[in-house]
Amino acid sequence: MSTNALPRQSDDFPGWYAAVVRRAELAEHSPVRGSMVIRPDGFAIWEAVRSALDERIKATGHRNLYFPLFVPGDVLQREGELVEGFAPEVAVVTRAGGEELAEPLVVRPTSEAQFWSTYAGWIRSYRDLPLLYNQWANVVRWELRPRLFLRTTEFLWQEGHTAHATQAEAMAEVLRILHEVYADAVERVLAIPVLRGRKSAAERFPGAVETFTLEALMRDGKALQSATSHYLGQRFSEAYGVTYTDAAGAQQHPYGTSWGASTRLIGGLIMAHGDDRGLRLPPAVAPVQAVVVPVGNDPGVAEAAPSLCAAIRAAGVRAHLDDRDHVRPGAKYHEWELRGVPLRIELGPRDLAAGRAVVVRRDSAARRETSLDRLPGLVGGMLDEVQASLFADALTFRDSRTLRPSGYAQMRDFLAVAGGMAVAPWCGDAACERRVKDETKATIRCLPVDRGWSGGDCIVCGRAATEEATWAQAY
Amino acid sequence: MSTNALPRQSDDFPGWYAAVVRRAELAEHSPVRGSMVIRPDGFAIWEAVRSALDERIKATGHRNLYFPLFVPGDVLQREGELVEGFAPEVAVVTRAGGEELAEPLVVRPTSEAQFWSTYAGWIRSYRDLPLLYNQWANVVRWELRPRLFLRTTEFLWQEGHTAHATQAEAMAEVLRILHEVYADAVERVLAIPVLRGRKSAAERFPGAVETFTLEALMRDGKALQSATSHYLGQRFSEAYGVTYTDAAGAQQHPYGTSWGASTRLIGGLIMAHGDDRGLRLPPAVAPVQAVVVPVGNDPGVAEAAPSLCAAIRAAGVRAHLDDRDHVRPGAKYHEWELRGVPLRIELGPRDLAAGRAVVVRRDSAARRETSLDRLPGLVGGMLDEVQASLFADALTFRDSRTLRPSGYAQMRDFLAVAGGMAVAPWCGDAACERRVKDETKATIRCLPVDRGWSGGDCIVCGRAATEEATWAQAY
Repeated sequence: MSTNALPRQSDDFPGWYAAVVRRAELAEHSPVRGSMVIRPDGFAIWEAVRSALDERIKATGHRNLYFPLFVPGDVLQREGELVEGFAPEVAVVTRAGGEELAEPLVVRPTSEAQFWSTYAGWIRSYRDLPLLYNQWANVVRWELRPRLFLRTTEFLWQEGHTAHATQAEAMAEVLRILHEVYADAVERVLAIPVLRGRKSAAERFPGAVETFTLEALMRDGKALQSATSHYLGQRFSEAYGVTYTDAAGAQQHPYGTSWGASTRLIGGLIMAHGDDRGLRLPPAVAPVQAVVVPVGNDPGVAEAAPSLCAAIRAAGVRAHLDDRDHVRPGAKYHEWELRGVPLRIELGPRDLAAGRAVVVRRDSAARRETSLDRLPGLVGGMLDEVQASLFADALTFRDSRTLRPSGYAQMRDFLAVAGGMAVAPWCGDAACERRVKDETKATIRCLPVDRGWSGGDCIVCGRAATEEATWAQAY
Repeated sequence: MSTNALPRQSDDFPGWYAAVVRRAELAEHSPVRGSMVIRPDGFAIWEAVRSALDERIKATGHRNLYFPLFVPGDVLQREGELVEGFAPEVAVVTRAGGEELAEPLVVRPTSEAQFWSTYAGWIRSYRDLPLLYNQWANVVRWELRPRLFLRTTEFLWQEGHTAHATQAEAMAEVLRILHEVYADAVERVLAIPVLRGRKSAAERFPGAVETFTLEALMRDGKALQSATSHYLGQRFSEAYGVTYTDAAGAQQHPYGTSWGASTRLIGGLIMAHGDDRGLRLPPAVAPVQAVVVPVGNDPGVAEAAPSLCAAIRAAGVRAHLDDRDHVRPGAKYHEWELRGVPLRIELGPRDLAAGRAVVVRRDSAARRETSLDRLPGLVGGMLDEVQASLFADALTFRDSRTLRPSGYAQMRDFLAVAGGMAVAPWCGDAACERRVKDETKATIRCLPVDRGWSGGDCIVCGRAATEEATWAQAY
């Protein structure tokens, strides 16, 4: 790994992002357009994110299952809006087993079609409801301007697909997922503060009646949609002929939801916390939480460092000993800073003689001398501090980049130039939404979860507003 | 779920298998030829199998990562034997993003090509070795005669791909995976005894120098290849131009291994343990380990059953309360037997009055009265007994179906008619192997891990044998 400086975030944020992903060995482009190889450090982060989500998905009563990668074209086409939304992005298998296929197969861009065509056979009576199912899978959406983790042709995600007897139950499910699964995991585990809201019609998932979202602010002032939860109404149950017999014996169409979060979250993690020296990983997802670096060519240190590392590991911390003898301590410090390891523990001959080590926090660069005896017992608490600090930093940053504009001109300049989130009343008219987009590239990232009058005039046209929108440029 | 009897194993084993998979709701066929939907109970088993393997893969020093689903045709074609072996089975994407692709993409049938073409960029010096990487992924091999879990167009698996400085290290890796990862997980967790061995040239993985295998005997007397571990020599490093600089400064090609286990193991689990009443699941992988069934329409029982179930759950057991009021206890018993739940706990009014419950083992049908107070503390031990019993049963069955034939005629009749494993000396000539296959449908399932003289004459041709082969018909 080269030790050249990274591009500065303030000079070239996209260049900084690409360099960090490559040099921290999180991922790289593959020879297939738009696809990526997720390297072990990137994948270890994904495993931590996946566990955090999977635990919460199961704790809220859902079970995992698995549907096929391929969708027959005619199955996909039964729900018009969905197929239209994804048509330009799909990859199609036309040859298999040495022959041209009579019926081409679409590689799943999302799996509503498969789930609902199969649910027709699984749902008979109200006793079969709700179905609360989720799958972890790869999906493919052809991507012409790929960016690692953020927009890739193939990505990994989970997609939940549930069926309910009533509209109220389905809507409760959509919000439970938004709050108890997604927001909880993203805030507590990824340490990224999120806005929870509803999408405008223009930004809604194709096929959804209502889309809810989590929006997070990145350090370049752009927003990242971090997870979505959709209320599907009866659209899919009607399109796929799914009915159930209710307790009174009548045939009904169940109500559906779907919801997903993907490897895109890793992109969010990088851009929400990283600084000019590289990644800053929240301890909860860091593959290495503490690295022990022996300093100086000293036999006593060479002997003591592995025991120190083992003692820290025994305390339940993912600790790593960097005992490479062909790399100098300074180069190691740079490398582990780039890789975002939350704590660095330096142990030199004078430290050892004094019975102490120096602990350096990646997030704040704070240094602290700690006695070797007490160190293993203290690392867990220090990691908790780093986790809390990263969340607090990101929240402070978001507050500093959130504007309640006094007029349209101020909002326009803020969104187009400074970058950040603008919160202002909106009349609900798509024409005003379009005008902001045309003039600033910013879109409505979200509306309040509950519809309601905000008590102001539309920031764009001055007519009475129906709610308060949050605008930002977005990934 | 219907309560009709299953086909008997002895009358119609394939019919029994298909009925169990469908009625226990493990999986079903999808509209895409050869693909399957893995239902929640089937997927929960897979999650348990996957954890058992993943733990062992990580404990032996490997890390997970992820390579793309699609392989460019020219990357795949650089290793001749591999591409030839898989050519008839691949699915090809020719259209994507609304256009015909200039270069069609193959959906991965296995990932040696991608790993090795990328390893060229990751390996520079001996310090970069070994690379010990694994991925969990879906792969596609076009299947004309699909059977759920056993042979499906798409299946889930893990594939390890490692690179080593020396031949000895690579061979040690291949055997470590066979013994410490695969055999350990299959025997201890799936409770299936396995033969560990080497494949004959005719049965080797395309591209491998040597293939090692686990072979398990199913209850119809056929063998199932349960996992394989391949020594690749320098074939892939040469084909993909992967070299490293050794400590003396010379350029060398590293040695490779690859190894995989898949959802096929679930098929093995069903066929190694199941009986005429349905599944018999080893507790270690059972989604429900103990089911509590209240008997009789009694308010006391209706109140006591949930607390009993909760107490068992609190003891760390996956317990389920079947309190459906529209299904009678007898039908519940049949259903949970079909689903293979290791322990059924019956609680009726007379039991409750006497302060006891009845515990029925699925594997042996043994009934045991146990006091309600002590029951939650005893369930863990009872589950251990079931786990051990299932393994012992399968071992006894395999012993009863393993023959050391005294002559070729006896072996031929045994393999063609009775079914089972025949162990006999072999001269090493592919012609003798072919003759057995032509006359009995049986193939050499494995040879001893270490090559060596067995001290006998070839069971087929009478010439001096070079080793002892195990023959069986196989899935």
